[in-house]
Formats: sequence, structure tokens, C-alpha cells
Amino acid sequence: MSPPRQVFIAVIGAGGVGKAFLHQLSGLASRLSQSPSSPYRLSLIWLSTSNKAVYHADYKSLSDWEAELETNAKPSLALPQLQDYLVKAPGKVVLVDNTSNQDVANAYPTFLNRGISIVTPNKKAFSGNLQLFNDIFAAAANGSNSSGAGGHVFHESSVGAGLPVISTLKDLLETGDEVTKIEGVFSGTMSFLFNSFQPTSGGGGRFSAEVTNAKNKGYTEPDARDDLNGLDVARKLTILARLAGLPVESPTSFPVQSLIPAELESCQSGDDFLEKLPQYDAQMDALKQEAASEGKVVRFVGSVDVPANAVKVGLEKFDATHPIAALKGSDNIIAFYTKRYGDNPLIIQGAGAGADVTAMGVTADLVKVLRLLH
Amino acid sequence: MSPPRQVFIAVIGAGGVGKAFLHQLSGLASRLSQSPSSPYRLSLIWLSTSNKAVYHADYKSLSDWEAELETNAKPSLALPQLQDYLVKAPGKVVLVDNTSNQDVANAYPTFLNRGISIVTPNKKAFSGNLQLFNDIFAAAANGSNSSGAGGHVFHESSVGAGLPVISTLKDLLETGDEVTKIEGVFSGTMSFLFNSFQPTSGGGGRFSAEVTNAKNKGYTEPDARDDLNGLDVARKLTILARLAGLPVESPTSFPVQSLIPAELESCQSGDDFLEKLPQYDAQMDALKQEAASEGKVVRFVGSVDVPANAVKVGLEKFDATHPIAALKGSDNIIAFYTKRYGDNPLIIQGAGAGADVTAMGVTADLVKVLRLLH
Repeated sequence: MSPPRQVFIAVIGAGGVGKAFLHQLSGLASRLSQSPSSPYRLSLIWLSTSNKAVYHADYKSLSDWEAELETNAKPSLALPQLQDYLVKAPGKVVLVDNTSNQDVANAYPTFLNRGISIVTPNKKAFSGNLQLFNDIFAAAANGSNSSGAGGHVFHESSVGAGLPVISTLKDLLETGDEVTKIEGVFSGTMSFLFNSFQPTSGGGGRFSAEVTNAKNKGYTEPDARDDLNGLDVARKLTILARLAGLPVESPTSFPVQSLIPAELESCQSGDDFLEKLPQYDAQMDALKQEAASEGKVVRFVGSVDVPANAVKVGLEKFDATHPIAALKGSDNIIAFYTKRYGDNPLIIQGAGAGADVTAMGVTADLVKVLRLLH
Repeated sequence: MSPPRQVFIAVIGAGGVGKAFLHQLSGLASRLSQSPSSPYRLSLIWLSTSNKAVYHADYKSLSDWEAELETNAKPSLALPQLQDYLVKAPGKVVLVDNTSNQDVANAYPTFLNRGISIVTPNKKAFSGNLQLFNDIFAAAANGSNSSGAGGHVFHESSVGAGLPVISTLKDLLETGDEVTKIEGVFSGTMSFLFNSFQPTSGGGGRFSAEVTNAKNKGYTEPDARDDLNGLDVARKLTILARLAGLPVESPTSFPVQSLIPAELESCQSGDDFLEKLPQYDAQMDALKQEAASEGKVVRFVGSVDVPANAVKVGLEKFDATHPIAALKGSDNIIAFYTKRYGDNPLIIQGAGAGADVTAMGVTADLVKVLRLLH
């Protein structure tokens, strides 16, 4: 029996997801250290926020990161210096990027090429320009890096948080199934908004009132327009489409319906926008009435039609008995239509946002990377 | 760049799932051999049916197993001799057990202890007596075999065929979530039967007529009593409950409702049973009416209540808008209620039976094992 291997963990980001992840990491590290048969021991050696960092030159474990961040923080290192620090660690390193930062994402290929594995919910790495996506998987040991020296990269939480969306798509493809269509509700905000705007049981408020309600309940970004423009959903569809083999150039290279009335795009602030939105309720009311007259409801969905090489995001009407219509609360739903599964798709459903379930996807990815490190 | 590693595959069973798997294996082997960056090459070195086998003493690949099985088959080897043959192969070996044979299942611990990995949909290995389940995971490198010399074992298709049920449960547990309840429809036969017997839209035939209809459409075992006794569902619940940490002794150690009227248990044949079943329709009709009067429908479900250490299988009533009620065709649905996911469970839904989707789960498990072999 070989002694347990020390694996070094570096975490960027200590916001909502970052804190939830650090909590899960501490539980995981403690379970592993208590299991005599576990071949790994985990050591947190780096934690940085947007402007400060805690780490030790001798790679000593950050046993109490909260206290150290409070009392012992230094200015953060630039990414190349962070890489230099990490590659010299006396063992394998996994970088956990819990930010949505484009600069960190841009550095993934060099981290991977230098043997550092990455787990992350950061959508920008996989939905930005296609070259970055290709560079990441060309550098990764679980992509096409044939030297075997690269790090592994996993990003389950970049779509549907902890729901097993990306792993399921990969299983379908790797076993030779043909994925024909992926369709679903990919935004907790949009889910909550439309489940309230037009419940299958009838009723529901005016659109602007439901947006304000969703914002007040904390379901939207600080500026609700960041949800209503559809870009968050477009990013997730870009990721799934690319994994399914479509060379999607960017999240703005296919039709994305924005729910921001053209006249309000130039509003100075989110509050100004919310104040003026009621003037445009008639449009959304008309859509709702039209759907209702057909026994349907309106939902904000995304879809990838693989054979047609077509991706789109926007409003669609669904029969009240359709699983997409019957969604509850702020749940996501993702349906995979494939040759093997036939008429009834493989469906994954549940909370697709929130710090704990997003961090869960990251932690599960970390466990997968640990198994691959040897 | 190291040369690709040869991994040797031994397959037991060439029935519906076995044939579908061999087809998928051939696709996988060919994709891997065409990928310059793939670190593996696959070789099929053993294929056996219930009474014959094809293999070569020099471990030469079975390039055309269908023809060889036809023209070149030998009597099969006993399991200890098969092990002796496989452990001498010049590389890592994965045994794919596509049977539902108890004897093969009983031999898993010795296969694993001798370094042979196992992927299988065989429920009997994980739902029979608890000692066998414990022995399997004590021997497995991904269980608690601390020598690191054991094989890996994966069995996704033992519950819900290719649906990501077991992998999702493991992710939830390994990341420290608390699973409170697992509930769902775990049998394609029972799903089809009750979706027809009491559709949410009303109507549906008498119970005996729907059983005959399901049998005629090929949705039941040759003897429909093998579905109606609930044992197949009980086996799946046993597996999930044990993975969730409950020491379930056997699939008959908790309440399982059989839909075979007590008076018909002694019927000589399945046909005799089907002929007499209509005499007992009144009971099922009464249940259906009772449910309908409450705005509900009857479904055959299984559930694991983890904190209460309680497993049960049988008929329950669900609101017509409940995801379990709204299931279509012969789909399975599995809902995980956990601390992190809160009121709205994580749901997996889709075909839970059929040769292609069962084989898909086996093939996906094989890919996972390949990544772990080094």
C-alpha cells in the first residue's frame, strides 16, 4: 500500500460559490484524511479574491483560510506569477476558478500546459471565442493533449450548476449515441419569472411586476437586464453546442431574443429600466393571451438542433402538460433527444443556480480529477 | 508521448444487452484507434454465452465475434479457469458481465481481487445478500481495497439503464450533500402499465387488459408475474439504499407490494395467470376510483427514506401535476431529495429499459474504467 498522495488545491474567488466550495472542500479533505483507504490528502495552498491572496512560500496548508484572509493577506499575484508558484508545488495541483473572470479563463491553456488541472463553473472559458475553447481542450490531458503531461479540465457547473448535464452529454457522445436536439430552461431567473408570469394553472401577474418581484426575491442579477438580455442562457447553449460538435463562434453568433424592449436599452440604470418597463407590458400580455388561447404557456428556452447546426434562445409556447411548462420555482430542465432515447428524451431537472449546488458541481469535478491524478 | 496501452475486454453474455454492447464496443474501439491522442487500444479477447465461448490462448483479438461464435466456439470455461486465463493477459483486463447470472455475480470479489475490473448491468451482484455487496466494494480499487491492486467496479445500468442515476447519487454523497429521500418509478413495465391504466387525462382500460396489452407489446417479461411481483423494483431500491448507506439485508427485507393476487400465486403458468387475472380487476378499479376522486392517479413506485432507514415498494397516489404522474410511455423517473436541493428534487427521467440504453450505461462505465487504468 503506497502512502497517500498530497494534492494541492488553489482557489480563486471567495464570493458566494467560492465560500460554498471552500466549505465543501473542507468536508471532503476531512473525509479523505479519515479514510485509511483513501489514496489522497488535500492541501489548500492558495486562496485569492479580486485584490488579495493568502499563500505561503513553503506551500504550507491554509488551515484557517477565513482568519488568514482577514489578518494575513498579501496583494494577489499576477496570473503568470501564480503559475510559477503553483508549478513548483511538491505534488499535483488543481486550480479551482470560482470567478466569472475572463482574464483567468484566458490563462487556462497555459495552466493546463504546465500540468495544472482546472475545475470551474466559469462560463466565460467555454462560451467566449471559439479559439479559447479549442485551446483549452488542446492543452488538456482529457482533451487532445497527446503528451499526457497536461492538466485535466472539468466544468460541470458551467451549465445547470450541479445538475449532471455536461457529464451526461459526454456519456451520450462517447458511447456513440447521436444527439439530435438539446432543449430546456437554462436560467433559474427565467424559470422563476415565467413560471410566475404564466403558471400552468392560469393567472400570473403582469410581466414588469413579475420582474420586480423576481428582483426583490433575489432571483435576478443586481441589474435585471443582465438576465433579460438572454446572454447568460446563450453562453450555456454555446457550451453545449460546442461539446456536441458544433463550431459555434460566440454566444452572439446565433439568434438570441432579448426581453429588453429596444427603447429601454439605453436606460441609464437598472432602476430606471424597471420604472419604465410597465409601459411595455401590453406586448408580453398579448403573447400570454395568444399562448393561453392555444392551451399553451410561454417559456424562455434555449435549444441546439445538432443536424441543422442551429442554436437559438428565446420565447416559445409549450402545451401545459409539457415537462418544460410544468417546471416549478426556479428549476432548470434540460432534455436530450437522441437516437437511442427516441421520442421521449433523457431529462435532467432541478435547481440550476445557487451557491451550494453550483459548488457541488465543482466539488464533484474535483473528486473526478483526483481519481485521474497519478 | 507514451505508446497507447492495450486494454483487454472479456464479455459474458450475448443476449439483447450483450449484442447491443458489443456493437457499441466496436464503435468505441474504432474511435479510439483512430484518435492519435487516445492513450488506449481495446481488444476483445473473450466472449461467452450460457454454454459456449470464443477466445484464443494467445489473447488474439476476436475481430469478428459473430462469425467466430458461429464457427469457432469452444465449451465455456468455469469461472476460476476464466479468471486464470484473464489474469495472464499481457495488460489490464475489464470483464463486462451482461448477464443477470447470480454465479457470475458471486465471483466478482475474486475477479476484483485479482486485478480485473468489472462493468455490468447485473442487478444480482448489488441487490442480493448484503455480504456479497460488501465483499465487492471491499475488493474494488474504487471501494475500500487499500492495496490499490484491485480492479474497479461500475454498475450504472443496474438502476435505470443508461440514465445517470448511480453516478448522480455518488456525486451527491461524495460532495457531502445529505440525501433525505429517493423516490421514483424504476420499472419500464410498471411505468407503461400504470400510465395506460390511469392516464392523467382520464380513461384507461381495466387492469388485466392493460397487463395483457403490455405483454403483447413486449413490455413485460415472458411471464408477466416476474414484473408484477415487484422484485425487480425492490432490487433497484436495494442498490440505491445501500449506496446511500443503509444496510439493507436483501430485496425481500422491506415491504414490497406484489400486484399478483394471493389466490393466483400458485397458477401453473403465466398464461393461466393472465386468464384468471380479470376476476380481480374490481380491486384495482376501486383503487383507481379512489385516487380519481382525490384528483390523483395510482402509480407503482419505490422509495428510500434515508433518515428513517425505510425502503418500500408499492402503489401510491400522486396529484395529476406531480412529475411521477406525468410520466410518459415506459419512462423511468428518479427524484433525489437532498439538503442542498431543498423542496424541489433533482430529477432524472427517460427510458430505463431497452438493450441500447442499457448497453450505453455499460459502455459509459467502460470509458470511466479506461481512464482509471494506469
